[in-house]
Amino acid sequence: MARVISLLEDGAADGRSVIRDLWPHTGRALTVGLTGPPGVGKSTLSAALVTFLRATGETVGVLSVDPSSPFTKGALLGDRIRLSDHFLDPGVYIRSMGTRGHLGGLAEATFLAMRVLDAAGKDAVLIETVGVGQSEIEVASVVDVVVLVLQPGSGDAVQALKAGVMEIPDVICVNKRDHPDAHAMRAELTRALSLSLATSRPPVVETDARDGSGVEELWATIVRRRDALGADGLAERRRQSLARELRTVAIARAAARIGVMLDGDAVVGEALARLDARALDPLAAVEVLYRAAFGE
Amino acid sequence: MARVISLLEDGAADGRSVIRDLWPHTGRALTVGLTGPPGVGKSTLSAALVTFLRATGETVGVLSVDPSSPFTKGALLGDRIRLSDHFLDPGVYIRSMGTRGHLGGLAEATFLAMRVLDAAGKDAVLIETVGVGQSEIEVASVVDVVVLVLQPGSGDAVQALKAGVMEIPDVICVNKRDHPDAHAMRAELTRALSLSLATSRPPVVETDARDGSGVEELWATIVRRRDALGADGLAERRRQSLARELRTVAIARAAARIGVMLDGDAVVGEALARLDARALDPLAAVEVLYRAAFGE
Repeated sequence: MARVISLLEDGAADGRSVIRDLWPHTGRALTVGLTGPPGVGKSTLSAALVTFLRATGETVGVLSVDPSSPFTKGALLGDRIRLSDHFLDPGVYIRSMGTRGHLGGLAEATFLAMRVLDAAGKDAVLIETVGVGQSEIEVASVVDVVVLVLQPGSGDAVQALKAGVMEIPDVICVNKRDHPDAHAMRAELTRALSLSLATSRPPVVETDARDGSGVEELWATIVRRRDALGADGLAERRRQSLARELRTVAIARAAARIGVMLDGDAVVGEALARLDARALDPLAAVEVLYRAAFGE
Repeated sequence: MARVISLLEDGAADGRSVIRDLWPHTGRALTVGLTGPPGVGKSTLSAALVTFLRATGETVGVLSVDPSSPFTKGALLGDRIRLSDHFLDPGVYIRSMGTRGHLGGLAEATFLAMRVLDAAGKDAVLIETVGVGQSEIEVASVVDVVVLVLQPGSGDAVQALKAGVMEIPDVICVNKRDHPDAHAMRAELTRALSLSLATSRPPVVETDARDGSGVEELWATIVRRRDALGADGLAERRRQSLARELRTVAIARAAARIGVMLDGDAVVGEALARLDARALDPLAAVEVLYRAAFGE
């Protein structure tokens, strides 16, 4: 799996044919996105979910696309998150995703890695991403169930939910539930959700990932959410997810192409110089750039 | 001004020729981005800055691209923000930006509106955007000085600064400084900035926008920040901003093109159906979409 995912991160032709071959064997895994601000304990929660799932006999893959994650920072063996417990367990696969210069970027590599883990027979695939903005959540939203992880003090995220700036997730997990401000947080969140314009209110589950409390309930809530969709609902959701995935990856590729032109194309460079000298206006310069990138 | 900006929002050909004509007359205004999570008081702060600037005799334009802003929600005449005080003042222009279906989207319309206000002789142009993610800040970063507005309780944003997930702004403004948690917030922010890997630490100014306290100091800090760049430094910063602007607008146009193909193109629709039936893999489907959009 590690080798295949590396091929996909590199955008290698071998990776392409692997995806073609394994695509018909995907769709069995329950895919879950864990998103939220940095520091709320998403990595610890992933580790706690892995422990819980392994105890029930399920196999699991974890993909981290969070640059602030202890996973990504290489603290895989840190005592705190205890992922070392799972290191020799063949039923667990953990990987922090990188771009490695591939055109479609992190999003594309992550979507494909998710399929590799799915086709390899993992029962659950968790994708951990950081952020409260739309773009950060995008990667985590091409999954069966999106969990927004907050902690007491996540006032900005709660405001964003309330203001309709952030999409309502499927499940909200308030981690660090023993924090002194947890009660205030819960009240604020309930108020925000009742004020938001969304039609459905997501269930709120409280956890303390460090000792695993609430993690079983969190997983049960995730599974219930998926099951509530029914077979048709899940198929429809996955159809919509696929279209969103294509959109995200195509835009990432277009953005990479635009970046290449901006950095190195002679015609674009000349336009930038003329723009700077105020001999060319920004709209005309955009058109030069767009034409250089896409030949229209 | 209102009519020209509407033309630009519509992407009308007349708007294009206006931009060509006024472009040589831009570059005089001090442009400031106010960004930050919803609910921290960015609109009230904009109003307080307008009051302060008008008292010193400067003219000012305000562009709001914040869907959660009281401006954007049409509460322009709300007592709280007192923008009504400025309504008959020809030295003030206030507008909430919309996309109105234009290809380059909100970012493009906002960048161009900024130039209209600049060329029209406004001494200062403020751009208010919501968000703590990179994409939201993008619009506000094509300015001379970026101000991140926080309030006590903005724990997520402080974590994002600390984790390096959010870019370090030029100035940080802690609004609602009389809030009981303001002291804790200040300590947390100082710790976060000292831990962050950024080489330069932005000045932190405390305000209470509702009574205008600290607003004079905030503006002085913004001006100092701009002046510290020197003429060459400012010219270089604007060069980089222009390149970033072209990139943002070209990507927005490419994304719009991809969206159109995804929604209506027959070949793409067929690819989606085959994808759904697992007869086509996602990488192959992305290539169909990309080709449909850009003809490669």
